[in-house]
Amino acid sequence: MPPPVLAIVGPGETASPRDLRHAEALGGLAAGRGWQIVTGGLAVGVMAAAARGARRAGGTVIGILPSMDRGGASLDLSVAVVTGLGQGRNNLVVLSSDAVAVCGMSAGTAVEAALAVRAARPLVLVAAEPPTRHFFAALAPLQMLHFAATPEEAVDRLAPVIDQRR
Amino acid sequence: MPPPVLAIVGPGETASPRDLRHAEALGGLAAGRGWQIVTGGLAVGVMAAAARGARRAGGTVIGILPSMDRGGASLDLSVAVVTGLGQGRNNLVVLSSDAVAVCGMSAGTAVEAALAVRAARPLVLVAAEPPTRHFFAALAPLQMLHFAATPEEAVDRLAPVIDQRR
Amino acid sequence: MPPPVLAIVGPGETASPRDLRHAEALGGLAAGRGWQIVTGGLAVGVMAAAARGARRAGGTVIGILPSMDRGGASLDLSVAVVTGLGQGRNNLVVLSSDAVAVCGMSAGTAVEAALAVRAARPLVLVAAEPPTRHFFAALAPLQMLHFAATPEEAVDRLAPVIDQRR
Amino acid sequence: MPPPVLAIVGPGETASPRDLRHAEALGGLAAGRGWQIVTGGLAVGVMAAAARGARRAGGTVIGILPSMDRGGASLDLSVAVVTGLGQGRNNLVVLSSDAVAVCGMSAGTAVEAALAVRAARPLVLVAAEPPTRHFFAALAPLQMLHFAATPEEAVDRLAPVIDQRR
Repeated sequence: MPPPVLAIVGPGETASPRDLRHAEALGGLAAGRGWQIVTGGLAVGVMAAAARGARRAGGTVIGILPSMDRGGASLDLSVAVVTGLGQGRNNLVVLSSDAVAVCGMSAGTAVEAALAVRAARPLVLVAAEPPTRHFFAALAPLQMLHFAATPEEAVDRLAPVIDQRR
Repeated sequence: MPPPVLAIVGPGETASPRDLRHAEALGGLAAGRGWQIVTGGLAVGVMAAAARGARRAGGTVIGILPSMDRGGASLDLSVAVVTGLGQGRNNLVVLSSDAVAVCGMSAGTAVEAALAVRAARPLVLVAAEPPTRHFFAALAPLQMLHFAATPEEAVDRLAPVIDQRR
Repeated sequence: MPPPVLAIVGPGETASPRDLRHAEALGGLAAGRGWQIVTGGLAVGVMAAAARGARRAGGTVIGILPSMDRGGASLDLSVAVVTGLGQGRNNLVVLSSDAVAVCGMSAGTAVEAALAVRAARPLVLVAAEPPTRHFFAALAPLQMLHFAATPEEAVDRLAPVIDQRR
Repeated sequence: MPPPVLAIVGPGETASPRDLRHAEALGGLAAGRGWQIVTGGLAVGVMAAAARGARRAGGTVIGILPSMDRGGASLDLSVAVVTGLGQGRNNLVVLSSDAVAVCGMSAGTAVEAALAVRAARPLVLVAAEPPTRHFFAALAPLQMLHFAATPEEAVDRLAPVIDQRR
């Protein structure tokens, strides 16, 4: 049976340097714990940074791609799933995970974070701004939502939750 | 060519009486303008109220159902689309619309509202609470996001936008 | 509740003149019986011919479109469902139907006919070639598979089956 | 970048002992060449046999699961992708592959084989019956369709084709 899987999601083109640093660190920390990571698979933004971090730490990176072929995929993927579902693939990223970590915010990221609440996946928001924190605090059950200032704190909060799911 | 289409989205089981009144009124107002409406199709919550309102006003109601058959469908549908996509069907509700009206909030509703921003569909939040207003104000381009206190105001705000899309 | 729905499927660009005549006639016959029809929605091949036939006879035409917008849609649609699912939309055409009529053959058509068998939808092959007849005869339960030489025969065979499903 | 990926598809509950032997052998042969395999992921029929064969040979097994969770998954998966798409997940199995090998026939298998033709993936039919051979010979371009009596012959035929795609 596969090990636990952490989804790492966040903006593409509009990711901030801090979002990218957080995503890359999260990828490395997840790999260090023996978790697989799953992302949207493209060679851009938080997806790419998380994949790079996990791959450099020897981890397994699952990329769930939006288009009909592997065009635009990150070179750090261990496994490339081609969906042809466009943004509909976001639901697969969330469903295939044991927990979801969010670095930054965008419309696509909001979809993924809300899908995590909908699918009852533990959700950690890393260094989130107040409007994001307040919105998800009103939306998600208390025990499923975590806030973290750093990637290390995010992984520390998720670890017991992920172990409990397995 | 089909007329304009308004998506009406909101909570299912957890919809408040006010959400239901707003959704039913929106359905009727949309039908009165000759718009089709599209919903998630089930006989529950905002979906059911919007369908009822539109059908009673002589409108066309498109229901995009989550499961593999028509089980649980509202009896007010003019057309039932069976997707087998589960919550993945929410993207089809949004993509099939010219604009999206939101009554109330839940995890599934947040997914649909964020998908509307992602797909660049005009979005109106009806009687939304402050955390929802602040979150979407930070997420959506100014000209694509509308706030309305009543269903009448929502339709008044969307009408010129929908005409412009056609 | 919506009336019975007939899916009419077949080749796009590669449809033969005979396939197109059959599809257009089927659309008209279905509308004449008060059935809705559902197709892949594009303005090409069997999809377009079926839509034209049904619309001219005053019927309701549901088009389930592959792309992220209404580009390429037949002008004869009563309702346009935008899926963004590419060829994955074929499953929705089949699931949304009470029975499936096939005019001609292509790779996409084979997918839809096989999906009909998979989803236990009654299937009628109109004027099918021997390799198609033999393959589906080996694949489908006897009582779910029908062969017809003409559109009239196809509708005559499906009518009692569709009534039985409702 | 991930290595080449072979999809191995065939019946579930109704697979014959020969289909299962072929699938297990194909999984092992693919792993021996350094290819990943992708299947529908469940612990039944050809999916399960292919996964077992590949895993025992040290290969990577990608399972693309139909439901909303990992219930029913083969224990031999290296990676489990949860789709919630039901039978719609078959398109992802095909799109994620560089070639498709078919062991046995059923309605679901016919869908996958026809999707392979539709998506222009090289297709090999292993020990197929005459109706299947004749149908796909009429459907697929000559150079994309292969017949093989044994798993060894199937892999020998696909190897140059897969290398050419990469």
